[in-house]
Amino acid sequence: MDRNRVEALLRKNFARDLKRVRRMIQQPSVSGEGRGIRECAQLVATYLAEAGVASPELVETGGNPVVYGELDAGAKHTLIVYMMYDTQPFAGEAWTQPPLEANVVPHEGFPGVVIGRGAVNTKGPMVAFLNALLAVKQAKDLLPVNLKFVVEGEEELGSPHLPQFVKENLGRLRSAEAVLYPAAMQDRAGKAKLWLGNKGILYLELVCSGARWGRGPLAHDIHSANKAWVDSPVWRLVKALASMVSDDGNTAKVAGFYDEVLGPSPEEHRALKDLAASFDPEAFRVENKVDHFLDDLEGIALLERYLYASTLNVDGIWGGHTGPGTKTVLPAEARARLDVRLVPDQAPDAMLARIRTHLDKKGFPDVEVLVHDRYDWSQTPAGAPIVTAAMKAYQGMGHAPEVWPRIGGSLPMYLFTKEPLRLPALAAGLGHGAHAHAPDEYMVVEGARGVEGLLGQEASYLRILEAYAEVGA
Amino acid sequence: MDRNRVEALLRKNFARDLKRVRRMIQQPSVSGEGRGIRECAQLVATYLAEAGVASPELVETGGNPVVYGELDAGAKHTLIVYMMYDTQPFAGEAWTQPPLEANVVPHEGFPGVVIGRGAVNTKGPMVAFLNALLAVKQAKDLLPVNLKFVVEGEEELGSPHLPQFVKENLGRLRSAEAVLYPAAMQDRAGKAKLWLGNKGILYLELVCSGARWGRGPLAHDIHSANKAWVDSPVWRLVKALASMVSDDGNTAKVAGFYDEVLGPSPEEHRALKDLAASFDPEAFRVENKVDHFLDDLEGIALLERYLYASTLNVDGIWGGHTGPGTKTVLPAEARARLDVRLVPDQAPDAMLARIRTHLDKKGFPDVEVLVHDRYDWSQTPAGAPIVTAAMKAYQGMGHAPEVWPRIGGSLPMYLFTKEPLRLPALAAGLGHGAHAHAPDEYMVVEGARGVEGLLGQEASYLRILEAYAEVGA
Repeated sequence: MDRNRVEALLRKNFARDLKRVRRMIQQPSVSGEGRGIRECAQLVATYLAEAGVASPELVETGGNPVVYGELDAGAKHTLIVYMMYDTQPFAGEAWTQPPLEANVVPHEGFPGVVIGRGAVNTKGPMVAFLNALLAVKQAKDLLPVNLKFVVEGEEELGSPHLPQFVKENLGRLRSAEAVLYPAAMQDRAGKAKLWLGNKGILYLELVCSGARWGRGPLAHDIHSANKAWVDSPVWRLVKALASMVSDDGNTAKVAGFYDEVLGPSPEEHRALKDLAASFDPEAFRVENKVDHFLDDLEGIALLERYLYASTLNVDGIWGGHTGPGTKTVLPAEARARLDVRLVPDQAPDAMLARIRTHLDKKGFPDVEVLVHDRYDWSQTPAGAPIVTAAMKAYQGMGHAPEVWPRIGGSLPMYLFTKEPLRLPALAAGLGHGAHAHAPDEYMVVEGARGVEGLLGQEASYLRILEAYAEVGA
Repeated sequence: MDRNRVEALLRKNFARDLKRVRRMIQQPSVSGEGRGIRECAQLVATYLAEAGVASPELVETGGNPVVYGELDAGAKHTLIVYMMYDTQPFAGEAWTQPPLEANVVPHEGFPGVVIGRGAVNTKGPMVAFLNALLAVKQAKDLLPVNLKFVVEGEEELGSPHLPQFVKENLGRLRSAEAVLYPAAMQDRAGKAKLWLGNKGILYLELVCSGARWGRGPLAHDIHSANKAWVDSPVWRLVKALASMVSDDGNTAKVAGFYDEVLGPSPEEHRALKDLAASFDPEAFRVENKVDHFLDDLEGIALLERYLYASTLNVDGIWGGHTGPGTKTVLPAEARARLDVRLVPDQAPDAMLARIRTHLDKKGFPDVEVLVHDRYDWSQTPAGAPIVTAAMKAYQGMGHAPEVWPRIGGSLPMYLFTKEPLRLPALAAGLGHGAHAHAPDEYMVVEGARGVEGLLGQEASYLRILEAYAEVGA
């Protein structure tokens, strides 16, 4: 592959390629609402075909289709490229730019960012990666590695059908050596990162209702004067929730919650020390509008908390009258959505059983626990060739990578890294974006202060593939 | 007044008069949403004029207008008729009939009920009362008492501008001897009731936000992976709320909460005993779909709990992602709406101060307490002429009244019963309806099993006025 020639083409086609990014963001694909899914899957298949994939398929599952395709470059090594085409919802959020317009504006000190739902999570990186492949094809060049694309449409739902897809397509996936998940891995200060793993997640909904309790209003909200002689399912939910955490809300009080948590090994602790030396919490604070970390932790302790802690969070809570104005009701039901982030060696099913046991023991056997999603955690060895390749690519573009043992977020990488595939998997790539799962999600398209723009991001993906061709297993 | 002739006219005009009830329900007037208010006030003024009120006015306040009018019958005695034209909201509720259609259907064992928002609370009784007056006028007869109408449009908001109206119109109100609030006071089994008072209310909104706390997300929801190192305003609200009540949610744990609560006097205790002999909790259970009273109380203990207890209820709670699907966020804010029901001798302002102190002392000084409404409690002596008149009217129609020292709900009657007016005030009238503040609110229009229909309800109002002319002060 003549990288200089391909990069010249990318520069030449910048305006068109940015439009391709915007077009993908403008196509809604909110899996939580079933909005625009099939249209987006079709658009991804079109982009794959344009990038050189022979015949991309929409592989049907019990849910949203997986877009699958192979790009055979006749190379020695083969990577799975994991991507997603669905996004978080945005209804009810306050954005400064419409979340489906993908407007390009100066923002947060960058000359140009694209603002929209999915900008960085992860339509921007997906299209940047495909733009790079399109340039290779238009240069009539060959990729240095073969690629097998697995682009799912249910990541934001917890990938409920990806296990099925992987199981049913093992034959096609087995020949791959590693998994690359194209991402924008620089922070707002330009620091380039690599994550070697991710936490798992158990996303639950707790339902406390008079109907199941047998007390309180059984069928509908009633006049709140009746609180004098009727029990309240909302107070019951509040008490059940309060029983699950310490007073500061930062330690789970569910028996056995932390039993399988492995703290950092001595080796990992040394790595944390290195990380703490370069880690700048300020970028996170500014990006997320947070003043204080919990317990005002700093340095290694802060990083250890973020990377090695299992957590219990309330994602949402609601019951009774939540609209404007006054309405005096004793509600018949209240609900809360909780997520547990899981670290090695915790398992989602064991955690679910412990939460159930906790509620039963604390006197809340009627409080229902619905499971929305569950992911296992994933871990890739620091010495895996895909990690070496990414580090080499970053360094080749003048970026010293900061290596993170894992991230706090959750991904379905365990489907590749655990049995039966047992492949190393890595999220990698330069570029920067922020506010995933939040208003004004953006991705930088014109870089500044060491943050690569769309061109640098595209180039970084090419360099990773190139480096992998050299160091691959 | 020739009652027989007036009642014959009511029978003759039943279809038209029922349409007048339906028309009023069909006109939305949701004060919590500012919907249809002025149109409804205008409609009430039209009905008042048709009923013989000389020149009804929309009296402007800082909020929704009060419809005021006088009907001078040249009689010896004068009553204030207190009514309201606003209703609770209904958005998001599951109704079997559209809440604004006022359909008349067989329902819950009655041959005909009108279903709609405000059917019993309180457009149905209001129009029934005005229908009765219209019949008197059409019979070219004279009412036995003079009436001064005070019809407010903010009762469901806690009557924020009624104190101002009463203050500014003392000159017009002072000549009245008592206050009548037309209501449908039979339960579903046909038992006719009188309440001598009502509880007060303090309706609050608690806000827990990162912005005020200075911890957690300060500006917007962030990715929930950050729970590992960022505090949660939702957990904080849960803990603040949990600190306010006992484990069963039925006893407030706010210091001093019950200090001014007067239990029943020996005389009131004897009245409770009488009440317990006739009170049938089954009607309440069926109407509200409740199986168990709290602590499985029965008899006098149950009635005492309902009538003499001050309560702390959660009317609504919300924060984070409350829509469909999965969204993993660490919310920046959570809110709860609480109501405190106040009994003699509690005062709203003192209660507010105690809740503020509780939160401060428990370590939640940043949790904001917004006041939506506050009503004082009200009490009318059992021997007041308006009470005697209502009892006489009920008995005249074959109904033995069940006298309740008060109700658990809240009304702005204190504005009439306390300084400076100090008038006896009474909610009275036959007829039945249910599900105020809930889906499928209805009022019976064709009676059964001793429950009066619209005609009996209208007749009962006429009899109360007639009886008052005899026993009035």
